[in-house]
Amino acid sequence: MERLGQAARAAATAMRRTATGPKNAALLAMAERLTDARAELLAANARDLARGRESGLDAALLERLALDDGRIDAMIEGLAQVAALPDPVGEIDGLRSRPSGIQVGQMRVPLGVIGIIYESRPNVTLEAASLCLKSGNACILRGGSEARESNAAIAACIRTGLLDAGLPEGAVQVVATTDRAAVGRLIAMPEYVDVIIPRGGKSLIERISREARVPVIKHLDGVCHVYLDATADPEKALAIAVNAKTHRYGTCNTMETLLVDAPVAEALLPRLAEAYAGHGVELRGCERTRTILPEATPATEEDWQAEYLAPVLAIRVVDGIDAAVAHIERYGSHHTDAIVTEHYGLARRFMAEVDSSSVMVNASTRFADGFEYGLGAEIGISTDKLHARGPVGLEGLTTRKYIVLGDGQVRR
Amino acid sequence: MERLGQAARAAATAMRRTATGPKNAALLAMAERLTDARAELLAANARDLARGRESGLDAALLERLALDDGRIDAMIEGLAQVAALPDPVGEIDGLRSRPSGIQVGQMRVPLGVIGIIYESRPNVTLEAASLCLKSGNACILRGGSEARESNAAIAACIRTGLLDAGLPEGAVQVVATTDRAAVGRLIAMPEYVDVIIPRGGKSLIERISREARVPVIKHLDGVCHVYLDATADPEKALAIAVNAKTHRYGTCNTMETLLVDAPVAEALLPRLAEAYAGHGVELRGCERTRTILPEATPATEEDWQAEYLAPVLAIRVVDGIDAAVAHIERYGSHHTDAIVTEHYGLARRFMAEVDSSSVMVNASTRFADGFEYGLGAEIGISTDKLHARGPVGLEGLTTRKYIVLGDGQVRR
Repeated sequence: MERLGQAARAAATAMRRTATGPKNAALLAMAERLTDARAELLAANARDLARGRESGLDAALLERLALDDGRIDAMIEGLAQVAALPDPVGEIDGLRSRPSGIQVGQMRVPLGVIGIIYESRPNVTLEAASLCLKSGNACILRGGSEARESNAAIAACIRTGLLDAGLPEGAVQVVATTDRAAVGRLIAMPEYVDVIIPRGGKSLIERISREARVPVIKHLDGVCHVYLDATADPEKALAIAVNAKTHRYGTCNTMETLLVDAPVAEALLPRLAEAYAGHGVELRGCERTRTILPEATPATEEDWQAEYLAPVLAIRVVDGIDAAVAHIERYGSHHTDAIVTEHYGLARRFMAEVDSSSVMVNASTRFADGFEYGLGAEIGISTDKLHARGPVGLEGLTTRKYIVLGDGQVRR
Repeated sequence: MERLGQAARAAATAMRRTATGPKNAALLAMAERLTDARAELLAANARDLARGRESGLDAALLERLALDDGRIDAMIEGLAQVAALPDPVGEIDGLRSRPSGIQVGQMRVPLGVIGIIYESRPNVTLEAASLCLKSGNACILRGGSEARESNAAIAACIRTGLLDAGLPEGAVQVVATTDRAAVGRLIAMPEYVDVIIPRGGKSLIERISREARVPVIKHLDGVCHVYLDATADPEKALAIAVNAKTHRYGTCNTMETLLVDAPVAEALLPRLAEAYAGHGVELRGCERTRTILPEATPATEEDWQAEYLAPVLAIRVVDGIDAAVAHIERYGSHHTDAIVTEHYGLARRFMAEVDSSSVMVNASTRFADGFEYGLGAEIGISTDKLHARGPVGLEGLTTRKYIVLGDGQVRR
């Protein structure tokens, strides 16, 4: 790992100086190499899958591990999309003259060396590499051992793509060893690694955050809420509450608790229950919910904290926006929360008072996503407050330094 | 500390919702209270000083601890200045429409609860409180035990100022205990504290960074360079090289190593040496420097890494910008580095290639400062790459969350 770290640090210095042209050329060269290597990649993936089946990996894990032509097409297309994104590096903001005569502004620059630790999905290898490369960083990628042959095949395409474009091999390094101690070393080399981004389940992220000696951009849980205010348009309320829960169950921006303002609970809850029943969603309600929907299971304290990632929904009847905001503050995970309302003042209050990475008015929580937000791509969703908050795109992989332009000025 | 943490968390929720008016009113009320309490504050400070002298504190520490009418005037004036700064909270950037019909933007919001740990200077208590308050945060302040009576007197003014304006007392809490274990607890309560800012010597900051369980915005050393390129205007080169070293010795943005391009070393070094001699600056030079300035002490490897904070300067003759940038990359602390040049391309290269929090062309490194940059105030200079880099003003005490405005949109 020391050796990888040194190579990454040296490559980061070179990448910082690399113009947009060669970076895009490398991304497109990787796409070409991947097109040529499709058969080898599928074969490597088949070997990973066979080994996974033998060692008894569960079906969900095997599904995430599997590549097919469609997924490889998406990987190739993704490279072209990242090449088409504007290069954030070198952008200068707010350059203004000061009374001393100097001009001061901020220039966007790469973070340096980014370590990414992820689980079974091999397409993350390419996605992470392309975003780090475009943003002028060097990266060290550590994927799951179950995907090692797929990752090695992808790494070969990345390496030749870099060399085709005249960029240093060290700009993207895929850790070959499956030794778990390698992760421990990677997250404890502040001299070589500027930031760690773990992608995966909560336990992986918690362990890495606890043990890391370099900054971590982390994505913990998404206990997301929709609050249906008394002034909500009933059709918007129904559409959003159903979409936020049922569009996909396993994603972090899926609603886990629905809060309903008391005056409209009797009108809305039966219609919602019918829609949820059509999707097979199990309902767990507070006492007031259960007087309207007796079929709901009684919700416990744990339900308000739960990230179900499953067709289960907690429902609570609340008295107005203060109770809704207080519930979100107490039980939420500060990921994404939405209000449905037609009241201007309440919309403004909800936006100001809810301290989450995404706060929405009259839209489904499922929109909390780098593509939907127009970032072009995302490397994850940060639940941290510092640096990057919410979906992290190319900009989140950069930082800003001050630049000062003078004509010989000295400080008096 | 638990109790302080809980009170701060509750106050942070209230402060997040507080408009600019009451925040400014509290700042101005504190200024009034301080004006009225001037005699008590001077008396409390005199007791701190007497105790400090008895316990044998050194002269520099006593100097930092001492308050007089001038320093109290500056504190009062500082409150008015912070009140006059624009409020960063609620500012919305980049709101744009997406193909789905939602509008997405970013809103600037407070970080939450900020813990600040500092040493002897009692005026930091008021400065830190005013910046955290204006940026909508709650703060817990832990000053040095040698300043405890001064800090208690200032805390009383802060508390009554908060109450005068109807803001919660918990918005600014000054830790009364001088128990060192309190610091250990403060930096390990992620449930109550969102970020720690240590202000003080390197050993304090290193210890806190090592032990903290919440994010730290840190300011480590300033090993700053000025590189005099062969194309530099000699008068600008002399003015900047002399100012960057001699304007003040103990500040982090003071130049510690001067790099001189070989073709101009013979012309510039004797003139520089004469100017430095006039200021009593001791020179330590590389071998090439010493062939021109035989009176310079031979520089060792340690000199290239030294943050002297004293009238001592290391000088190295280098071959062009590549050698200069390589030296800065290897030995610098990524704080502030400047080039003096009249060459357009070299100015651009230096700005792009030097990875420091401030990079300057034809200006003295001494300008790296929140006031000089127009931030209005600064709580410190960050040498971190994530979140805030360089001087940290009100904006560095905030973060941005995504806001989504819709009309009932759901994800397809």
